[in-house]
Amino acid sequence: MTVANAIEQACPGRRLVYFGDLARTPYGSKSPETIQKYSRQNIEFLLGKGAKLIVVACNSAASVAAEEMRREFQQPIFDVIGPAVAKVGQIVGAASAKATRIGVIGTRATIKSGIYSRKIHELMPDAAVYSTACPLLVPLVEEGWLSKRETKMILRRYLQPLKIKRVEALVLGCTHYPLLKELIQPRIGKQVKIIDSSLEVAVSLREYLARHPEDDEIEREGGSSEFYVSDITEAAVATARKIFGRPIDLVKV
Amino acid sequence: MTVANAIEQACPGRRLVYFGDLARTPYGSKSPETIQKYSRQNIEFLLGKGAKLIVVACNSAASVAAEEMRREFQQPIFDVIGPAVAKVGQIVGAASAKATRIGVIGTRATIKSGIYSRKIHELMPDAAVYSTACPLLVPLVEEGWLSKRETKMILRRYLQPLKIKRVEALVLGCTHYPLLKELIQPRIGKQVKIIDSSLEVAVSLREYLARHPEDDEIEREGGSSEFYVSDITEAAVATARKIFGRPIDLVKV
Repeated sequence: MTVANAIEQACPGRRLVYFGDLARTPYGSKSPETIQKYSRQNIEFLLGKGAKLIVVACNSAASVAAEEMRREFQQPIFDVIGPAVAKVGQIVGAASAKATRIGVIGTRATIKSGIYSRKIHELMPDAAVYSTACPLLVPLVEEGWLSKRETKMILRRYLQPLKIKRVEALVLGCTHYPLLKELIQPRIGKQVKIIDSSLEVAVSLREYLARHPEDDEIEREGGSSEFYVSDITEAAVATARKIFGRPIDLVKV
Repeated sequence: MTVANAIEQACPGRRLVYFGDLARTPYGSKSPETIQKYSRQNIEFLLGKGAKLIVVACNSAASVAAEEMRREFQQPIFDVIGPAVAKVGQIVGAASAKATRIGVIGTRATIKSGIYSRKIHELMPDAAVYSTACPLLVPLVEEGWLSKRETKMILRRYLQPLKIKRVEALVLGCTHYPLLKELIQPRIGKQVKIIDSSLEVAVSLREYLARHPEDDEIEREGGSSEFYVSDITEAAVATARKIFGRPIDLVKV
């Protein structure tokens, strides 16, 4: 939902079709095979709703399934990882002649896939990449524990190994983490540049659409947003309202 | 898995068929409709493997789906709630002429269903039941954070409202919580009786089988255990080994 909201802001007037797999989330602790299967089903659903371009708006799915999905589907598939890595290169790589130190935090599936490390190294072969899985942050965010003492302590524990390595930039490699950015910044260090994978994919999508006016025509049909989910709970309705700043009509499919 | 282990101990020589829906867990934050759908599919799978009696070994599923499933299937369906409530009656209700105060902790789905409160009141109409959802305990247990300071602080926060009410007994209404029992006891109070829903269902099942020798004959065929899961991860294999005290061959279906 944080990504869908960023895309609505960055690409106004488009027809956005959102699907949230709430009946099977979280994905972050599941196996690559299961995440690939779910991603395939989710993309087929969105294509059935007329989507012309897919955004894999979950780092866990992007980590283990996006490349596979690009081989299976013809439509352009965006994910949250490429744009975040490009941003890393832009803000720390180009400016620095010396080897840079980059931190990455994410779910177990994302960190275990090694994809951020691999993609950062493709762009900056001399960078040192330090990654840490932070599996408790998603449940803490979903509980709304955004200013609780325990959340701060857990963050300090997770960030400590990256702080010791004096990372210059930190990638928030999970779409839940931007909600913790205010707590993360002072704990990792004021000077550390934080890269938000949710925001970067929206920026990247806007630029892509500007470069492809032919898609532009097609995609502009409609200009509204539709929100589908595989399960509805009160918590999901409340979260949607909070993230989008308006009541969202979640349709269960 | 804690329930399956307790059943293996309580009912040796039986053929136990376990199914863990790891591809779709956790259930505790999902809607009743989704949990019912998954429970139905899981029971059909177990019946297909020859099960003659079903144990719903998850409080969230038991809370919102067990009664429904008893209407849909002819086989005996045990769940973790009935036996835990019977134990409450046995240890605090019968002994006490005055009104008793009972605490219940569980997932959001379990607490929201109100089933513990309803069933305790059927047995002890004068009891005061205080329930609290503790949604962060499952991820903390799954991370193995069983002795971390943050876990102790979070437990204190969750248990505080029940401690203020001076509960005489506390039901661990989630099969993950027995792993936290050592931390819960000093925080709720040494004098508070803790009821473990995982253990009670195994005891209840053993007694049922003793009362039904005709089932006994049927069920004794085989005498081994089979473990099926809908997803396999390293974490699941490690947890199974730890809970059962031996390597478990998890079969993905």
